[in-house]
Amino acid sequence: MQPSDRIRAIFARYVELVSAGHYDAIAELYAPDATLEDPIGAPQKRGREAIRGFYQASAGAAKLDLTGPVRVSGREAAAPMQATLTGPDGKRAFIDIIDVMSFDEDGLITSMRAYWSPDAIRREG
Amino acid sequence: MQPSDRIRAIFARYVELVSAGHYDAIAELYAPDATLEDPIGAPQKRGREAIRGFYQASAGAAKLDLTGPVRVSGREAAAPMQATLTGPDGKRAFIDIIDVMSFDEDGLITSMRAYWSPDAIRREG
Repeated sequence: MQPSDRIRAIFARYVELVSAGHYDAIAELYAPDATLEDPIGAPQKRGREAIRGFYQASAGAAKLDLTGPVRVSGREAAAPMQATLTGPDGKRAFIDIIDVMSFDEDGLITSMRAYWSPDAIRREG
Repeated sequence: MQPSDRIRAIFARYVELVSAGHYDAIAELYAPDATLEDPIGAPQKRGREAIRGFYQASAGAAKLDLTGPVRVSGREAAAPMQATLTGPDGKRAFIDIIDVMSFDEDGLITSMRAYWSPDAIRREG
């Protein structure tokens, strides 16, 4: 597999695992000393344990789908996504996101930064 | 206008100016000491003059279209785009790109990084 295709496959697995709320498996995609900033401007998490806690706190809250191709430049990549959240009344809300990630030579995520903002949440109905 | 809507408007103007090949006007969107890396991994350009030269060299070569919403986080933003290039034989090629930009308090671009790679160019017919 080409390195760029490997990175595309990691993004696909990432959105699958986030949608399923499998925070342990998500944390395993990250390098031990990786950083995470989601959304950009929020306090940065550093290290796999802090990152695991971040995904655990929101596990099952949102379904994540890629909405276009993953753009790969060497070991850096970005992809457009949509998060779908379902409220207690069954109504859905949507957030457009772009996740930007860097990878090490083993294909582990070394940094993730998520571009979105609460003011851009679109509510159904 | 909200700061986030202002940033969205700058992206819209940016793709319009790039499509038209108006490199002087594109350079004016950038702060005097801005940086540009397009694609990521290419030598970084620094300063409005170097940036102007970059756009001059490729002026008119590609039509740029936003393919989804601009994601804004504070003064940082990312947007998915498609570049369309038309060859001498009239056949087109397409590149999926994500541009990531930072802005200063005046709405000038302080950095631009473009996620794409030549191996992802799709050719027509």
